[in-house]
Amino acid sequence: MTTQKAEWQYIDDHFEDFVSQLREAVRKPSIAAQNIGMDECAEYFRALLESYGIRARIIPTAGHPVVFGEIEGKDRGKTVLFYDHYDVQPPDPLDEWESDPFAGEIRDGKMYGRGVSDNKGNACARIQAVGTLLRLRGELPVNVKFLIEGEEEIGSTHLAEFIRDNKDLLRADYGVWESGYMSPDGRPGMYLGVKGILYIELEAQGPSRDMHSGSAATVPNPAWRLVWALSTIKNEKEEILIPGFYDAVLSPTEREMELIRAAVEGREGRTTGHTASTPRRQYGIHSPLADLSPLDLRVRSLFGPTANICGFRSGYLGEGQKTVLPAKALVKMDFRLVPEQDPEDIYRRLRKHLDDNGFDDIKTRVITMDYPVKTSADHPVVKAAEEAALAVYGKPPSIAPTQGGSGPMHPFKEYLNLPMVAFGVGYWGSGNHGPNENIRLEDYRQGIKMAMDFIDRL
Amino acid sequence: MTTQKAEWQYIDDHFEDFVSQLREAVRKPSIAAQNIGMDECAEYFRALLESYGIRARIIPTAGHPVVFGEIEGKDRGKTVLFYDHYDVQPPDPLDEWESDPFAGEIRDGKMYGRGVSDNKGNACARIQAVGTLLRLRGELPVNVKFLIEGEEEIGSTHLAEFIRDNKDLLRADYGVWESGYMSPDGRPGMYLGVKGILYIELEAQGPSRDMHSGSAATVPNPAWRLVWALSTIKNEKEEILIPGFYDAVLSPTEREMELIRAAVEGREGRTTGHTASTPRRQYGIHSPLADLSPLDLRVRSLFGPTANICGFRSGYLGEGQKTVLPAKALVKMDFRLVPEQDPEDIYRRLRKHLDDNGFDDIKTRVITMDYPVKTSADHPVVKAAEEAALAVYGKPPSIAPTQGGSGPMHPFKEYLNLPMVAFGVGYWGSGNHGPNENIRLEDYRQGIKMAMDFIDRL
Repeated sequence: MTTQKAEWQYIDDHFEDFVSQLREAVRKPSIAAQNIGMDECAEYFRALLESYGIRARIIPTAGHPVVFGEIEGKDRGKTVLFYDHYDVQPPDPLDEWESDPFAGEIRDGKMYGRGVSDNKGNACARIQAVGTLLRLRGELPVNVKFLIEGEEEIGSTHLAEFIRDNKDLLRADYGVWESGYMSPDGRPGMYLGVKGILYIELEAQGPSRDMHSGSAATVPNPAWRLVWALSTIKNEKEEILIPGFYDAVLSPTEREMELIRAAVEGREGRTTGHTASTPRRQYGIHSPLADLSPLDLRVRSLFGPTANICGFRSGYLGEGQKTVLPAKALVKMDFRLVPEQDPEDIYRRLRKHLDDNGFDDIKTRVITMDYPVKTSADHPVVKAAEEAALAVYGKPPSIAPTQGGSGPMHPFKEYLNLPMVAFGVGYWGSGNHGPNENIRLEDYRQGIKMAMDFIDRL
Repeated sequence: MTTQKAEWQYIDDHFEDFVSQLREAVRKPSIAAQNIGMDECAEYFRALLESYGIRARIIPTAGHPVVFGEIEGKDRGKTVLFYDHYDVQPPDPLDEWESDPFAGEIRDGKMYGRGVSDNKGNACARIQAVGTLLRLRGELPVNVKFLIEGEEEIGSTHLAEFIRDNKDLLRADYGVWESGYMSPDGRPGMYLGVKGILYIELEAQGPSRDMHSGSAATVPNPAWRLVWALSTIKNEKEEILIPGFYDAVLSPTEREMELIRAAVEGREGRTTGHTASTPRRQYGIHSPLADLSPLDLRVRSLFGPTANICGFRSGYLGEGQKTVLPAKALVKMDFRLVPEQDPEDIYRRLRKHLDDNGFDDIKTRVITMDYPVKTSADHPVVKAAEEAALAVYGKPPSIAPTQGGSGPMHPFKEYLNLPMVAFGVGYWGSGNHGPNENIRLEDYRQGIKMAMDFIDRL
């Protein structure tokens, strides 16, 4: 039996203990948005790190505290930093849960609970992987750091500041991002980046209060104003019309195209990360998106920026008939941005575009800005993850060069220049943020081994 | 003292009694939408008619009953029909009322109460006018009929049917519509017609449920579909782009233009009925409407059809940020139509316009259709009202050939071919449908005299 096999056997032999530790973590509700149980949960992770011989402490921020852990490796060489978070989404709607969201109940080989996939499962598996290596070997091949924040579900409000102010403490060569999901075809799904985001509100003002719609012949309607303004932002061909919007957009590299092709060709049903589903079947034939091939959809999904209407609210929203000329119209939009798009630049271009088209009466308000980040698919950290996955799961991972969604990855790039890869213990059915969030225990077992193997390959 | 002056003196001498009768009517809540107090209120009006010697009865419909009254005049010659309604809007929001909405409290020369202006004040004043003439003279110069329905505030659901089925009973030569309002310059406001209406919902369907907006690169968004579809319906010049939409629209006659000019030139502040206010000052300079003169605005207000967005609902409607790709987008629109536009024809044209522009995926649903109606400004009934106003108020009325709003006037034209004129006891500050609805008692006093004088001139 090789060393590795013996180490994996150790995981199998002690798996119930690992599961118990995870269940304990789930049983500490830590709802950042409601400020419930945050300190208790941070303390749990601090103690868990310490129990494995990893030096750990709780570092206050202006918001919820960060749990920081570190342990030196052999020769104090390279350093890997694991980014996770201990806060969870509120469990609502409660009545759609089949068991207490904070019980960590196990049914049919799955553990159910708020945060079990997002993100306590990953945090625990990684701590247990590092801790087990340390316990069995007495030393680690690399230095390891843990940054476990408490505000990811509320927008990572103080994360950038924390990283900026603790550059030396956090310095590392490789990073592991919080999440990753097994795909239905059994391949571990990984991704290497996130889109940026510009979330804005557009508001048009009409009369000072809702009026009888008999006035519509002579009183301008703010909902019409927004309709006209929006129709200058994106056309029916799904082309975004803001001048210069696409200027900084990068095409996929050859290696990225290879990864995408591998993901699309290998897929049976849903793939990892964001799914390029088939709009023609699902959504009718009225969108040019319906004519795209699965490969083109996948490229667009990962490398295409978006201009999306998240919400449109104006006038009467109830049932039946009310004849009203609305006082106000409000649109919420998110632009998902890809490297090298700059959300501040895009916002300036949007504002200028509106002004230039006679819509300077429409107010715009930035709610969120986040920069796109992507780790080069050629970076050794990606190679290490790829090889570890092959070793543990027996099949190559499905690697997405980035993903459709966004996340607070940018400060790691800006302040630490950290190349990051995302893999984890969730699966396509984990239902993050929804009721009955769960992971499969087999995925959890392999996730621990994956983190161990990954560290060995750095 | 002439006969008329003696009769007016009688009104002054007994004015407290008339006011008491109105207050009793207000104290009988009759909320059609909530089916509160309907029969009691109908019975009150029946009894009030009978108390003046006018034969009256309650006639059931499939909804709330109609109160019908009639009394023959001298020689059984011409007949005038007064159309009113005894139902009222719900009084909400209750906490914005300064006194009980069903108390009929009198403060500072005004009576406050739900329905006191819309429309119990008019109904009572007209009954009292006819009843007083009958009491003082023993006979009337014309036959008089009263149709007092109980469903006006819920769309006059059974009115057309009732008129169709009772043509002989209702036959008349002249009609008086339910409402009319004193303008701020002290002139009695009248109008001669209503716009038609086509109220529709437009719905676009996206994914089967709201999705994470990270999917926006590959999943069509129904809010965008509606934005694009709407932008083909009306442009920034306020031009409605549905082919043939304006084909049937009539221009004002010379006499109508005279009336409009008189209303605009004579106005100090707000005019009667719908106000052509100054969009430039109130709403910024971003609408072509801002550049129109008061006269052009007034013409547009009365003779221009509209395409108005009453409500737009899609995706996340709350505060702050939610990144969602909506499953559905819904728009409510009303088109206000002018003679000779036909709402069924306009709906067909709209549907064809959407289909022809590639929007056959957008569902349309008709909620309401009502036809435009207008009485010729040259009709003798208008002349009679004009002369009566001059006699009672000492100044010429401000006559609007039609109004911006709509109403159930069409069945009177279709089944009875009845020319109608609208005058009444409300004023520009009556606040129909809002809290603290009220009338000025002096307007009420003159309103009774106006109805008396009008009858004498027919």
